[in-house]
Amino acid sequence: MSAPKKVVLAYSGGLDTSIILKWLQTEYGCEVVTFTADLGQGEELEPARKKAELLGIKPENIFIEDVREEFVRDFVFPMFRANAVYEGLYLLGTSIARPLISKRLVEIAAETGADAVAHGATGKGNDQVRFELSAYALNPDIQVIAPWREWDLTSRTRLLEFAEANQIPIAKDKRGEAPFSVDANLLHTSSEGKVLEDPAVEAPDYVYQRTVHPEDAPDTPEYIEVTFAKGDAVAINGEEMSPATILTKLNELGGKHGCGRLDLVEGRYVGMKSRGVYETPGGTLLLEAHRGIESITLDRGAAHLKDELMPRYAELIYNGYWYSPEREMLQAAIDHSQEHVNGTVRMKLYKGSAQTVGRWSEDSLYSEQHVTFEEDAGAYDQKDAAGFIKINALRLKLLAARNRR
Amino acid sequence: MSAPKKVVLAYSGGLDTSIILKWLQTEYGCEVVTFTADLGQGEELEPARKKAELLGIKPENIFIEDVREEFVRDFVFPMFRANAVYEGLYLLGTSIARPLISKRLVEIAAETGADAVAHGATGKGNDQVRFELSAYALNPDIQVIAPWREWDLTSRTRLLEFAEANQIPIAKDKRGEAPFSVDANLLHTSSEGKVLEDPAVEAPDYVYQRTVHPEDAPDTPEYIEVTFAKGDAVAINGEEMSPATILTKLNELGGKHGCGRLDLVEGRYVGMKSRGVYETPGGTLLLEAHRGIESITLDRGAAHLKDELMPRYAELIYNGYWYSPEREMLQAAIDHSQEHVNGTVRMKLYKGSAQTVGRWSEDSLYSEQHVTFEEDAGAYDQKDAAGFIKINALRLKLLAARNRR
Amino acid sequence: MSAPKKVVLAYSGGLDTSIILKWLQTEYGCEVVTFTADLGQGEELEPARKKAELLGIKPENIFIEDVREEFVRDFVFPMFRANAVYEGLYLLGTSIARPLISKRLVEIAAETGADAVAHGATGKGNDQVRFELSAYALNPDIQVIAPWREWDLTSRTRLLEFAEANQIPIAKDKRGEAPFSVDANLLHTSSEGKVLEDPAVEAPDYVYQRTVHPEDAPDTPEYIEVTFAKGDAVAINGEEMSPATILTKLNELGGKHGCGRLDLVEGRYVGMKSRGVYETPGGTLLLEAHRGIESITLDRGAAHLKDELMPRYAELIYNGYWYSPEREMLQAAIDHSQEHVNGTVRMKLYKGSAQTVGRWSEDSLYSEQHVTFEEDAGAYDQKDAAGFIKINALRLKLLAARNRR
Amino acid sequence: MSAPKKVVLAYSGGLDTSIILKWLQTEYGCEVVTFTADLGQGEELEPARKKAELLGIKPENIFIEDVREEFVRDFVFPMFRANAVYEGLYLLGTSIARPLISKRLVEIAAETGADAVAHGATGKGNDQVRFELSAYALNPDIQVIAPWREWDLTSRTRLLEFAEANQIPIAKDKRGEAPFSVDANLLHTSSEGKVLEDPAVEAPDYVYQRTVHPEDAPDTPEYIEVTFAKGDAVAINGEEMSPATILTKLNELGGKHGCGRLDLVEGRYVGMKSRGVYETPGGTLLLEAHRGIESITLDRGAAHLKDELMPRYAELIYNGYWYSPEREMLQAAIDHSQEHVNGTVRMKLYKGSAQTVGRWSEDSLYSEQHVTFEEDAGAYDQKDAAGFIKINALRLKLLAARNRR
Repeated sequence: MSAPKKVVLAYSGGLDTSIILKWLQTEYGCEVVTFTADLGQGEELEPARKKAELLGIKPENIFIEDVREEFVRDFVFPMFRANAVYEGLYLLGTSIARPLISKRLVEIAAETGADAVAHGATGKGNDQVRFELSAYALNPDIQVIAPWREWDLTSRTRLLEFAEANQIPIAKDKRGEAPFSVDANLLHTSSEGKVLEDPAVEAPDYVYQRTVHPEDAPDTPEYIEVTFAKGDAVAINGEEMSPATILTKLNELGGKHGCGRLDLVEGRYVGMKSRGVYETPGGTLLLEAHRGIESITLDRGAAHLKDELMPRYAELIYNGYWYSPEREMLQAAIDHSQEHVNGTVRMKLYKGSAQTVGRWSEDSLYSEQHVTFEEDAGAYDQKDAAGFIKINALRLKLLAARNRR
Repeated sequence: MSAPKKVVLAYSGGLDTSIILKWLQTEYGCEVVTFTADLGQGEELEPARKKAELLGIKPENIFIEDVREEFVRDFVFPMFRANAVYEGLYLLGTSIARPLISKRLVEIAAETGADAVAHGATGKGNDQVRFELSAYALNPDIQVIAPWREWDLTSRTRLLEFAEANQIPIAKDKRGEAPFSVDANLLHTSSEGKVLEDPAVEAPDYVYQRTVHPEDAPDTPEYIEVTFAKGDAVAINGEEMSPATILTKLNELGGKHGCGRLDLVEGRYVGMKSRGVYETPGGTLLLEAHRGIESITLDRGAAHLKDELMPRYAELIYNGYWYSPEREMLQAAIDHSQEHVNGTVRMKLYKGSAQTVGRWSEDSLYSEQHVTFEEDAGAYDQKDAAGFIKINALRLKLLAARNRR
Repeated sequence: MSAPKKVVLAYSGGLDTSIILKWLQTEYGCEVVTFTADLGQGEELEPARKKAELLGIKPENIFIEDVREEFVRDFVFPMFRANAVYEGLYLLGTSIARPLISKRLVEIAAETGADAVAHGATGKGNDQVRFELSAYALNPDIQVIAPWREWDLTSRTRLLEFAEANQIPIAKDKRGEAPFSVDANLLHTSSEGKVLEDPAVEAPDYVYQRTVHPEDAPDTPEYIEVTFAKGDAVAINGEEMSPATILTKLNELGGKHGCGRLDLVEGRYVGMKSRGVYETPGGTLLLEAHRGIESITLDRGAAHLKDELMPRYAELIYNGYWYSPEREMLQAAIDHSQEHVNGTVRMKLYKGSAQTVGRWSEDSLYSEQHVTFEEDAGAYDQKDAAGFIKINALRLKLLAARNRR
Repeated sequence: MSAPKKVVLAYSGGLDTSIILKWLQTEYGCEVVTFTADLGQGEELEPARKKAELLGIKPENIFIEDVREEFVRDFVFPMFRANAVYEGLYLLGTSIARPLISKRLVEIAAETGADAVAHGATGKGNDQVRFELSAYALNPDIQVIAPWREWDLTSRTRLLEFAEANQIPIAKDKRGEAPFSVDANLLHTSSEGKVLEDPAVEAPDYVYQRTVHPEDAPDTPEYIEVTFAKGDAVAINGEEMSPATILTKLNELGGKHGCGRLDLVEGRYVGMKSRGVYETPGGTLLLEAHRGIESITLDRGAAHLKDELMPRYAELIYNGYWYSPEREMLQAAIDHSQEHVNGTVRMKLYKGSAQTVGRWSEDSLYSEQHVTFEEDAGAYDQKDAAGFIKINALRLKLLAARNRR
């Protein structure tokens, strides 16, 4: 592999990626292009531009983009159609953002004639895998540089020394070490490391940044209605909104009521277990609502197949295989099932819980006529059930007779 | 099929099964044996004995048994080892009790020389299937009588007429129709039908019988610790208890904090959708805690395989196939995984939510040394990750190169 | 269910369906519409027209159609994209024809204003299920009449009496009972029952009708080349052909070389096991060739997912769920994978076996550069494999360390 | 990782592993222990002892063992209980031998106080992964040395130079390069590389070493009977034999009739596709026979679950995860299903094909009474099928009605 000549860096504007920026310039002597995305992480982007300029990046090499709508429409929503949860609980908030970032890195590399991309993920985590598999799947000839796996800046002290030696401004609050590491986007905020490393110890209150403590949430429940079209949320309380606006609104609602907190030990793709604290207020509401609308619009056969495919689908996303044929195959199956997933779900939000209390749809498969305890006017002949059971029992009877021999 | 000579009836002592008892006597002219089980439904059993005697059942034909320990040990706990949920949400409280009842019916039939068993489930529901598949799987020659599918007592009025005509005592509060139908055992209480039939309308407060309203739950969170051995709960807050005692205690704790309510539309095995309101306070805590202890003691490979097998396993139980080779095969796989699922989970209960906040185990696979952001003393070589990613990316690169052609 | 007024009958022109035709007329007093399809079963259709006329069917109520192209294009080929085999071996030749017949029955019912359809499958087999589930899935209001489940013509003698009493001509060779029952279409011929009922006894030679005995096949192997486009066969030995023509040609080739015989005991959906002898000469070649072309054009991730989904897919077809959302979901996933399944497979046919000996494609993923034992010019860095293994081993090491404690 | 002091080498006695032996001595200056196993590869082992001695290995450090019975009993047979095939066709002959070799390497390391093991697999293949994952899973502290990934002997010329420089005897026929690479054990012989690298070109006849060409096989079919107990073959033609003896005998029979050849392009775990020619004569017969005996003794529910789990199980073995919790979980499920897989299968072997023509068992689930076209004395009530279909159709009807709206 020859040395890269021009690198597109996923750049947050923070201290760490600024160090990476400078390190790329000095280590490889290469031109750096920065890509800073608004994924809904809740930070201003313009300071990143200034910082990039300060570090000598040419204006035409600074890419700053609001990708929130694309993020929700093309990544978050397709994933929620699958009711994806990893290891039973995790809503994949970090995992689902990486493929989008890699896609833009690769696209910008093509636009700017860069031959490499770089990211700030460490060599111990899942994100390096997600960034790199995505990049290679989109451009098999791209080089990917992961400075954390390469350099010798292996302690906080050395990093700060490097920063100082290279005139990288260091915010005062970055001198000390952060008590834990954070990733955020429109779907979630994750916290891990340091004070969270002992999985036996409850996460301190100050870790949570996006949801109020359930104890501090309103004492009165709030009811909301989420409307779906083809499996995607399209309106809240009757008001139609764009994908990113919907997720933003759900975040507000969920956050206010303390919904969507998760303290999890998970199995990383690179082999060890790690403990994360996740806040996914809007996503938690969205999953509950989506399951609610599916419950009346999705046939049992389709629903059960989805449930069986889901863990694999979630694992693929967690492991970084968004741009793999098998994820796309599963997506094709899932999307096929969503044609009639239309209607509205009513939920009650209260001190950390979000529960479906009603659902209705013009595409409902629920038939009061069939299920009623009352007279059903011949919709269902109970005697059919006798035959149904007899035939289903036949193999079990043959087994029982055999096993008695 | 010849007429049955002696029938073992699953008898609750209530009006409906009393009518069935009498109907079996009159319709088939057969001897009736009653089986009344304490599954933790919270009702006295002795009144059932008196009522059976009153209806002419010989004392030696009256079987009243406390099967709570067997229920939890041999049915509930094995199921929870699988983290089984049906359609993403339902903890299978009714489904898991049926195989045990059928097993005892069939065993009592063998003891008493009966050639048939009978149950009080209707022809529209899942329970008929569960009762009958279990019975046939355990004795291929048994007859099963399902009066609700056979008789012409198809309205409340006719049932009451039959009761009166046959001197069956009718409790005053049974004259009118119940506003919904209830099933209960140590694992859960389910309510369905009548006032619950419109899935768009929130279930009225009075439907809930086993859990306080989250709004009425204590304003202060409660922390509890559940200890597991080989995947089964064995102690609460350090106190060892029998299986049924543990579940009883978890029910108290969960019920007090409003945990475990579920309002669900589900796909019945017999084809229609139905709406149920479930209260599973202890089971909800148990599932959360079990996932919590698995998160540090179960390897990722085992955990993900379990997650993929689970929907099928849950479907088998829901559909009544407890005594099927495929359920047993899955159980063998699941049980194999639980050897090291030992340790303790700390949970916070608060106004309807139960969340893991800590977990520890002598069998933990969590390695701070490997996951730490700090110096790891060579436990993990970050450069290995580069090779890991490169090799995993190879097929994606070959695909990308091909698709470019 | 009210009595049907007009029934569309799947009519072969043979004795059994002629008896059904007459029985429908006499039992229900209803008008009968006949549908006779050329599915490639190798029988003339015009005699069926004459016979229908003879039995009083109005000319406008006689539908005779060549559906071979539709059969192969819309049913056989989609199924072969999945490499579907039931219970490891059966190519689903009968199963895949039923949905097409039902579809036409229901369509003709709509065209002719009929309110029912009828078929000649017995109450013990799978075909009744396939016909009826398909019909109901396409028209929930249609009635389906299955005379074999209803009438009292339960012996050969009574059937013949009924035929004679109703002036139904009886071919001489139909007086005696056939030694086994046959179903045939362009994909296969199946034989079952009677002389085949003892699964311990080898099927007599005369059962086989469509393939020469391997011992009688040519002593010299024949090589053929099958070309695929998007997963479907489009040419043989370089000559492009329509779907039905391709399958016909493959049948000739396979039949000549004794390929595609199968003697199987299978689990029927209705619960018992049955023994069938199947001849699927063309299908056997097609499956082998399709696997061959996939082996170089399908990525491992897609291929393995397909392999895992296949048994379920095959089961759905076997059980009659062609028109179910879950079969369609799986088809969507499978079809998505076939985009690049283009190229040619070379096979050797010899005395019962058909084996791939070569394959090539412009969409090949096979890279000699990567796999070579020779110098690979840096295409693959063997050191990457060390990291790949180390990371994959990490969880196993943590397990081993734990289990030693 | 510190330098190893004592290494257990998987030693064949051939040129390549002799070079490795010497390289380990010179490169690491460490003591070498050799392990040479008779896995049924058909080579004398004593020459390996002499050669090891010649290369300076102390007698107590030379381990030569016949592990054929263990190989078949504990690895091959458990795998065949699952009907495992990789990518639809490959019987995993190489994959299944590696875990056994690693197990003995690790055990011998413990016995001899060695701190490392070494193998002769290259960095491009699957075997390195299988060896190493197995070793790490059995001893997390073991070092594994893979010289092919480390050294600079990257051409045939350099290897021979090294051999000459170190007095390693070179057989005359090893001077030139072999036209392809071979691996053999009691289950199979695989050939790959060099003349086989173009997957479009038919493998030359001389590649096949273990099976006669079908054209040269006897002109008369041979019938054999294989008897199973709990899913394992225990007798051929009525004669009981040990596991390894049975497989040896099946190899003779299959080889004589040209059975078990496979020319495959497969997806390697390390990412590229490779072409292999496999000869698995006995295994091919065993798989066919095992499916045959399962067809009458295994319930449909168990059989279909096995079919769905199989691809994953096969992939785990192929990828080297024999000693993983998930493989063991699947094995527990599979083994549970084999309790009643007893009986005998009759097969016809003829010019490359092996087909079941009869099967019988005292544990048969096949019921002529149920399946017969004749009068069944009430064993099966055809009217039950009507109810069975109606109930199964209900959800499809509700869907159809919905989709019409």
